[in-house]
Amino acid sequence: MKLIENISQLATCAGEGGQGAMHAIGDAAMVWEGATIRWVGPKRELPVEYWNAERIDAQGGTVVPGLVDCHTHLAFGGWRADEFTRRIEGASYLDIARAGGGIAKTVRLTREAGADALLNRARGFVREMTTLGVTTIEAKSGYGLDREHELELLRVYRRLAQAEPIAVVATFLGAHVVPPEYRDRREAYVALLIDELIPAVAAERLATACDVFVEESAFSLDEARRILLAGRAAGLAPRLHADQLSAGGGAELAAEVGALSADHLEHVSEKGIAAMAQAGVVAVSLPLVSLYLGQPPLPARRLIAAGVPVAVATDFNPGTAPSYHLPLAMTLACTLQRMTPAEALKGGTYYAAKALGLERRVGSLERGKAADFAVIDAPDVEHWLYHLRPNACRLTVAGGRAIWRAPGHSGARELA
Amino acid sequence: MKLIENISQLATCAGEGGQGAMHAIGDAAMVWEGATIRWVGPKRELPVEYWNAERIDAQGGTVVPGLVDCHTHLAFGGWRADEFTRRIEGASYLDIARAGGGIAKTVRLTREAGADALLNRARGFVREMTTLGVTTIEAKSGYGLDREHELELLRVYRRLAQAEPIAVVATFLGAHVVPPEYRDRREAYVALLIDELIPAVAAERLATACDVFVEESAFSLDEARRILLAGRAAGLAPRLHADQLSAGGGAELAAEVGALSADHLEHVSEKGIAAMAQAGVVAVSLPLVSLYLGQPPLPARRLIAAGVPVAVATDFNPGTAPSYHLPLAMTLACTLQRMTPAEALKGGTYYAAKALGLERRVGSLERGKAADFAVIDAPDVEHWLYHLRPNACRLTVAGGRAIWRAPGHSGARELA
Repeated sequence: MKLIENISQLATCAGEGGQGAMHAIGDAAMVWEGATIRWVGPKRELPVEYWNAERIDAQGGTVVPGLVDCHTHLAFGGWRADEFTRRIEGASYLDIARAGGGIAKTVRLTREAGADALLNRARGFVREMTTLGVTTIEAKSGYGLDREHELELLRVYRRLAQAEPIAVVATFLGAHVVPPEYRDRREAYVALLIDELIPAVAAERLATACDVFVEESAFSLDEARRILLAGRAAGLAPRLHADQLSAGGGAELAAEVGALSADHLEHVSEKGIAAMAQAGVVAVSLPLVSLYLGQPPLPARRLIAAGVPVAVATDFNPGTAPSYHLPLAMTLACTLQRMTPAEALKGGTYYAAKALGLERRVGSLERGKAADFAVIDAPDVEHWLYHLRPNACRLTVAGGRAIWRAPGHSGARELA
Repeated sequence: MKLIENISQLATCAGEGGQGAMHAIGDAAMVWEGATIRWVGPKRELPVEYWNAERIDAQGGTVVPGLVDCHTHLAFGGWRADEFTRRIEGASYLDIARAGGGIAKTVRLTREAGADALLNRARGFVREMTTLGVTTIEAKSGYGLDREHELELLRVYRRLAQAEPIAVVATFLGAHVVPPEYRDRREAYVALLIDELIPAVAAERLATACDVFVEESAFSLDEARRILLAGRAAGLAPRLHADQLSAGGGAELAAEVGALSADHLEHVSEKGIAAMAQAGVVAVSLPLVSLYLGQPPLPARRLIAAGVPVAVATDFNPGTAPSYHLPLAMTLACTLQRMTPAEALKGGTYYAAKALGLERRVGSLERGKAADFAVIDAPDVEHWLYHLRPNACRLTVAGGRAIWRAPGHSGARELA
């Protein structure tokens, strides 16, 4: 039994109360046993049965649920730094694609990389993410785009989940784009996804969700519907990349198929927002993409006003969001999307867990849930997301065990 | 004599060639003796006289000049996290000021803090900044706004400069805003600045520059001209906060008085740009402010096209830029201001040094200049600023001595 105390603020991020309700407790304490939380509350109310628990000092920091990055493309070959510069110089997405860049380049480099190299690289990213307080990571396939390499990516994620002390949750994104070799016979690719890949993924239990990129340059609404329903029938929860470049009805389709989430939504329609609210679909905002592409973000305030939960994720990928810094994404959700720090935190914890269908296990600090949390060097959540530092996280605990502690450098406060 | 080798790219950032010319050398080496660079070039050309120098392994990283943060408000009391949330919720600058917030709040808390507390806090910031590769920091007064506290802030900076192994360069910003006690007699405050404070600052050699916030809510063009000319006559180089909220003629005034820099410039006029180019005034861009305030940045492309050097700085302060992360500001200069990574690097090194009048000593890696540099865990500058990480710096050297090394955590590569 362990107890953490000397906490200036603890945000439970319990589900009730909506986006802005992070349920802050001042001078808090939390008790866990093994991997499970036993008690959370104001320290003065600590039940006597926990007084002898092993004590850990939060040194006056803030405690938040382990962060949940619910949208990443974690394993990939190569990088695309050159495209960063080319976009700044005015090249369009199409210019870059014509020059052999874009997703097609990453697909080529991912196919060439080999499973071990992909695993080692992804493991490096995961370890850096845990230093930021992240304890659950969703990871998509979608850079394989053929049977061999899509399954390879998902098996890499399985090995990663087994090797690392945090949760790695895989999503099948065979429907990322139509691969070059199917350019003139896209129906054959859709059939490959539905008839071969989804059954294979389901049979090996390699993913829990099936995602489709719904966009003119990727998959149509009708194709997406067929793929998502096939996935759903095989036990894979639907998710969508929707309405990123134009209002394409992706949000409405998400509602129709009962998706866990619709992600991007920069151009979501009012009808789409209403449909998502009605169906309880989570909107996943990706503010790093807005920053990198210099495009307006999703209408977070309108989504929140309509009752749609807004999650915040990095979209970590080598093209449009080459950063795995989820706390930075949360600060950007404040500055670019006009979400308050409390709203952004709920978006990086409880609602992110909800986008993965995991909100009963992770994403909030409540009795019976996973003892996944981060200790932040800040007096409160507001200060943390306002005073943007390289990394304000001082301790990350997953499954009840400390998996990362800040090294003793200047300015850092060591935690037990 | 020391030699650093195994460098995938070294950017000298020498002055010639304009904004985009970072002067990259592949497979480079650099030699220094004491605090001074002796040789920089491709390793294969290393002169035999340096072959026996003590060797340091850059482990395939990128070497850049020690970063120069040429615009900060480094020492202040308190924070203003609450205003971050209030602005997101729609409060205006005026609403916040009326509620006792804004600069006036920081002035109150700075006056209350006491010199030792201000020094300790600023020292903590400086140490964090050095971990990011920063080796020269400009620091402004301007939260004292009376004789006692303006001089106190500048003396704090002097103590900081003496105590820390990096360069801290102070700027007198008594003309930040008119303090509350002078609200109805602003002329008396201007007279205090000109007749008492500037002479006192100059006599004690407490600053090298004199800065004025030229804005409707701060100081008029005429007031600024009088203050800057008085400063100049006393040996303080003019600098300006100019054209932040409207085109107020600040850029033109900067040119007229031969200022080292005009900073902000979000609303600079075409005439102002032409005048700055003509007079050789550096434009200091502050992209974190654009991010935090959600306002368009300065027209970097137009400034560069006109031949105005564009520096990049953090503007670190507790209100509009509560972050001292200069590499993040440089990435934001890319994404928000459409500067290439090479241009942003020149802006955070040579041109930043030029904004301080220090470009003959720091800001570039050339024979005879200070051995101030940073080793970055990236194959090149483009990759560094594209792949935004909490901190990619692995080693910071100032005056020829290692002042910071990345601790041996996962993903970090230890450097000698």
